[in-house]
Amino acid sequence: MARRALLHRLAAAHPGDTAPLEALMDQGALDPRLIVAILGKTEGNGCVNDFTRAYAVQAMAGMLARRMLTTPEIVLEKVAMVMSGGTEGGLSPHWLVLSVVPDGGEATPGGARLAIGTAFTEPLPPAAIGRAAQAEATAEAVRAAMAAAGIEDPGSVHYVQVKCPLLTSERIAASEDPVVTHDTYASMGFSRGASALGVALALGEIDAVTDEMVLRDLSRFSARAACSAGVELARNEVVVLGMSQDWAGDLVIAHDVMADAIDLDAIRRALAAAGLPQGPGQLTEAEALVAVLAKAEPSTTGRIRGLRHIMNDDSDINATRHARALVGGVVAAATGRTDAFVSGGAEHQGPDGGGPVAIVARVAAAGPPP
Amino acid sequence: MARRALLHRLAAAHPGDTAPLEALMDQGALDPRLIVAILGKTEGNGCVNDFTRAYAVQAMAGMLARRMLTTPEIVLEKVAMVMSGGTEGGLSPHWLVLSVVPDGGEATPGGARLAIGTAFTEPLPPAAIGRAAQAEATAEAVRAAMAAAGIEDPGSVHYVQVKCPLLTSERIAASEDPVVTHDTYASMGFSRGASALGVALALGEIDAVTDEMVLRDLSRFSARAACSAGVELARNEVVVLGMSQDWAGDLVIAHDVMADAIDLDAIRRALAAAGLPQGPGQLTEAEALVAVLAKAEPSTTGRIRGLRHIMNDDSDINATRHARALVGGVVAAATGRTDAFVSGGAEHQGPDGGGPVAIVARVAAAGPPP
Amino acid sequence: MARRALLHRLAAAHPGDTAPLEALMDQGALDPRLIVAILGKTEGNGCVNDFTRAYAVQAMAGMLARRMLTTPEIVLEKVAMVMSGGTEGGLSPHWLVLSVVPDGGEATPGGARLAIGTAFTEPLPPAAIGRAAQAEATAEAVRAAMAAAGIEDPGSVHYVQVKCPLLTSERIAASEDPVVTHDTYASMGFSRGASALGVALALGEIDAVTDEMVLRDLSRFSARAACSAGVELARNEVVVLGMSQDWAGDLVIAHDVMADAIDLDAIRRALAAAGLPQGPGQLTEAEALVAVLAKAEPSTTGRIRGLRHIMNDDSDINATRHARALVGGVVAAATGRTDAFVSGGAEHQGPDGGGPVAIVARVAAAGPPP
Amino acid sequence: MARRALLHRLAAAHPGDTAPLEALMDQGALDPRLIVAILGKTEGNGCVNDFTRAYAVQAMAGMLARRMLTTPEIVLEKVAMVMSGGTEGGLSPHWLVLSVVPDGGEATPGGARLAIGTAFTEPLPPAAIGRAAQAEATAEAVRAAMAAAGIEDPGSVHYVQVKCPLLTSERIAASEDPVVTHDTYASMGFSRGASALGVALALGEIDAVTDEMVLRDLSRFSARAACSAGVELARNEVVVLGMSQDWAGDLVIAHDVMADAIDLDAIRRALAAAGLPQGPGQLTEAEALVAVLAKAEPSTTGRIRGLRHIMNDDSDINATRHARALVGGVVAAATGRTDAFVSGGAEHQGPDGGGPVAIVARVAAAGPPP
Repeated sequence: MARRALLHRLAAAHPGDTAPLEALMDQGALDPRLIVAILGKTEGNGCVNDFTRAYAVQAMAGMLARRMLTTPEIVLEKVAMVMSGGTEGGLSPHWLVLSVVPDGGEATPGGARLAIGTAFTEPLPPAAIGRAAQAEATAEAVRAAMAAAGIEDPGSVHYVQVKCPLLTSERIAASEDPVVTHDTYASMGFSRGASALGVALALGEIDAVTDEMVLRDLSRFSARAACSAGVELARNEVVVLGMSQDWAGDLVIAHDVMADAIDLDAIRRALAAAGLPQGPGQLTEAEALVAVLAKAEPSTTGRIRGLRHIMNDDSDINATRHARALVGGVVAAATGRTDAFVSGGAEHQGPDGGGPVAIVARVAAAGPPP
Repeated sequence: MARRALLHRLAAAHPGDTAPLEALMDQGALDPRLIVAILGKTEGNGCVNDFTRAYAVQAMAGMLARRMLTTPEIVLEKVAMVMSGGTEGGLSPHWLVLSVVPDGGEATPGGARLAIGTAFTEPLPPAAIGRAAQAEATAEAVRAAMAAAGIEDPGSVHYVQVKCPLLTSERIAASEDPVVTHDTYASMGFSRGASALGVALALGEIDAVTDEMVLRDLSRFSARAACSAGVELARNEVVVLGMSQDWAGDLVIAHDVMADAIDLDAIRRALAAAGLPQGPGQLTEAEALVAVLAKAEPSTTGRIRGLRHIMNDDSDINATRHARALVGGVVAAATGRTDAFVSGGAEHQGPDGGGPVAIVARVAAAGPPP
Repeated sequence: MARRALLHRLAAAHPGDTAPLEALMDQGALDPRLIVAILGKTEGNGCVNDFTRAYAVQAMAGMLARRMLTTPEIVLEKVAMVMSGGTEGGLSPHWLVLSVVPDGGEATPGGARLAIGTAFTEPLPPAAIGRAAQAEATAEAVRAAMAAAGIEDPGSVHYVQVKCPLLTSERIAASEDPVVTHDTYASMGFSRGASALGVALALGEIDAVTDEMVLRDLSRFSARAACSAGVELARNEVVVLGMSQDWAGDLVIAHDVMADAIDLDAIRRALAAAGLPQGPGQLTEAEALVAVLAKAEPSTTGRIRGLRHIMNDDSDINATRHARALVGGVVAAATGRTDAFVSGGAEHQGPDGGGPVAIVARVAAAGPPP
Repeated sequence: MARRALLHRLAAAHPGDTAPLEALMDQGALDPRLIVAILGKTEGNGCVNDFTRAYAVQAMAGMLARRMLTTPEIVLEKVAMVMSGGTEGGLSPHWLVLSVVPDGGEATPGGARLAIGTAFTEPLPPAAIGRAAQAEATAEAVRAAMAAAGIEDPGSVHYVQVKCPLLTSERIAASEDPVVTHDTYASMGFSRGASALGVALALGEIDAVTDEMVLRDLSRFSARAACSAGVELARNEVVVLGMSQDWAGDLVIAHDVMADAIDLDAIRRALAAAGLPQGPGQLTEAEALVAVLAKAEPSTTGRIRGLRHIMNDDSDINATRHARALVGGVVAAATGRTDAFVSGGAEHQGPDGGGPVAIVARVAAAGPPP
């Protein structure tokens, strides 16, 4: 018997909305013990003081603890909670619940299927954030998550979600060693960037990471990393999604890289790679589209295809908020859906101003497996 | 000799950036006396306290006054200044300068071309804003602008831009009669809505307007109105863009209606109607695409194709700001350009949550005239 | 034996920070079963999408449930949770934990002491929000809370805290009857205003409430109401603070009314009425000052002592956020402390632009009981 | 005959409101040729994309040019325009118009009066911003402004207003040499900080400035500098206000240093030093109070008198906006007025979290000259 990956996409009425997941369990459609990760798009600002992420974690962990007759702490040791704040523009708050069925049927002969692995780093000291130390710890966790998923070839990894900490005023004050920045908002970018370089290291996209590389040498990046920073955790949490012939089920994953924030073609290539049919305009068979995961980022050049954008100079709305709204619009144009997992801050995750996009699709509805 | 319409799209480095237009004049490419309207996307918040619009008007009027050896006041009597604040997401600040060459060559036999007309209402008392009185004054101005453009058939009108006033605390306090709302931000929607109903009235899309209809009966709308409210004016300013066989030149205009904020297909239909070729992904021959004008609005249902959006419940970023970022992303996905004139607040301008989209294209590059 | 009121003011490191309260319990300084209300200043935006309030409620209720071996639901039936979002300017996030010791010592002969009572309305249907129905339900709850505190004379009531619901897009869509407004942010003001009129009704400050009075006739108000709206509840929760000769302890309360947002003198009168000594500048014996509770609101006239303010016309920062920052500054100037419970939106709570201010002081340190 | 300084405080209805100043001129109360500086509190965000400052400069320069039959460029060569964005909380937008009457009557025997001097640096290259080069150029300008005012003793200088440039994405891209930061918002702090160190250098408060000192060694500061950064200029503009026995008139200036953002006592000391009487609460003889100028800044420790503030961790509202609202409240508590010139960002201007406060008073109403 092979393992089988499940991915439930559930609408969230608010950041603490556990009802849809509870309904799924009440219907017997999901055993809570199978859940390995919950990704949530929550409707906060996605920046330093976005407490919707911690609220969502508390709500989900509390609910699962009650259902599994254990404590929230034990739930959090086992389940990666990757809450990404910010549903600007048309983005729709939702949960992506990833589960693994141990005896999930027979693997399809000759057909690879979605495989999932998770791993965590140790708690990171404030001074490690945004530096090579964080990257190396992340790389180790990626390797552990690949091993957990039974994936050996880095080429079979299509998406690595990392949730990483940030520096708050409190943490900076408490740090024994000098931190990389005293600007709490800026620390989010450092943390995401170092984490992404860690993914690149684990996947062989780069050979080594130095402190100096982080946020400086943007030519080094991972095409498959998606990193999200939050105040609610102190370690890096890693979820690897890839393809494996050893897994069963009807889910597949594919990815591509958006060259800039309006790269509709890249999304279409990823949809095609996942076996999804496309008409002249939008996708009509939305049920085959299980999840879209994309990164959003303002280009540091201040331009998109030569035209000026104002994201980096806006002191009312943070740049990542603009970028999520924009990329959410482009993804919605491509897919006809607004419940995409678009997270902000794509430092070292794809090229400057662009970012990875991954598609999870259901094979049965979409045609022959890729 | 027939009249010929010109449309120059110019990047703006900031809201007071008159340099690109001055360069055009210095090169002899545009006679300032021919300008009839300047539409500007400025990088303010697009809401009540967006002074980038007034700043832009002051800069443009001052510069044109110096060039034409007259006063800013006289410039403003003649040139419609329609500044639309808000370049959220990837939208790029820019100017659309509309000019009319009186002796602009021979009209193309059998081929209609872009025709432009402008008109203004009298200054509107605060109590008229958002009510039938504003709609009727607007309708009269639309008819005057059509006459100025030489367009008789409302069916030949493809886009009516209206710039309308809003209520500030000062104006509310000064009003002798009760105003429609004491919420200054809300007054922008009332003003846009009443103005749009005025356009619908003039174009025969509805038969009559009542005070009660405004912002209540959203089934009544114009498919060709684009209304933008601003603190910097006290009257409605109307610019009609249509097609006429009596005009010369190489510009054409077409329009369609976005059913919702992510309606990529509607934009593609409008592009096709304007004769623009389309590849599988984005438009490559961008030079043929002269201007995109679209309205953005959050649906009052709180949903897009059934999925919740948070635009109406966000107290940090106003709903119109979210909507512009979103629609800007969809337009950029369709056209590969971010310098679209996407303005917010589409009350009675297209269906709830959607809005008109108009395309101005250059015929020579785009193929045979439509 | 008489009842004794306790008030613990505890700093909050984040909206879910239960640690200081847990430390108090661990030290044996507070029995969780005595807690009747928790007021929290949380660091969200204090507006519609401020989920820090719900997060705080969830954290506190969960923690108390674990400590009392019960469920969060049962905790919430008994303990009023009044989370007020918004710590703009210098305001410091904190908790005010109100407890009642049943056998709290002997009442001081001839000396009144702080008395506390709580009560809740039934869940309010969306159409009741902002209307007389909400006011009347609130008045009934105030009377019930007074009875619970053993206070008969409305003149002995110094502060009535009400936490009330708001309308979200979801609730509006679900309502069977027409709601008072479709603007979710505006609904907060309606809910606070109707609730305050209910307090005024119960305290005899007005004779009757009509739907039309709410937010229209601002000359009707309660000088002792403090209402705070939040998305996290569906009923009104009422906490009455007053003075009673039947209560023991060392806490007293006094109040005054700020005539406008910068009314330093009113705060000083309230401090004096609570028996607190004042030097030429700020209060030095801060330990005698147990709590400051004040309301903040932008004047609808757009002016403070004749000078224009921009709070009502700012589309980037909501007016209540400006007002909290301002009043927080004035309170800090008066008291030398930034952990004041300043909540926004003072509709019908004190005069237009002003609001009630209440001081809880410790008698022993402050001199003879008032 | 001695020179006499004039200071007109005028309410502004909007950032381009030149009407009150024009009215003054129309009444013959002010000769435009006497104006040496205009300080304006404008109602933008006070951060990078605050175009209300440039709008105000354009409006004022254009108006003065028309009145003096010259060009705006020539006006700007002569008149220092110091627009400070941000009127958060209760702050009231206003202008402070500083003029010098050459033959302004006899100097008061034994009585010093307000003296004004202005000077400008050369345009600063982007790489100089935030570094010792900017500080040294500023120090030179301060010395030139003191000479212009006829002040020799740095101890007679009470307030030095500096308007300094910031780095935008455009300027960063155009710079030949490495800039101090690529974060445009952060560049404002660097520019203010280096400018303030320049003032400290000129006034003998420090001995030397190094690149490393800027924003790092906050123990070095000027107690009399007030620096404000804006996108609308490329050089530093300096206005020195001091006391001189060689000047005539009825205006005096005094200053003090707020130790933190809620230091009411410091404001009261400055009021007293300027000869203003004080009652127990607020100042009643407001006409004697001509102007209040103060700096606002969040403490980098994240605390005010030991209590946490959230200014530095708020990603919705920039820290300087919080700080201005707070200090504006404290100043209003002290003076009973909201039209104080409170500007944000007090890096190296007073101690961390505090800042200078200066009072200009009219002697006749306030009693004997100090």
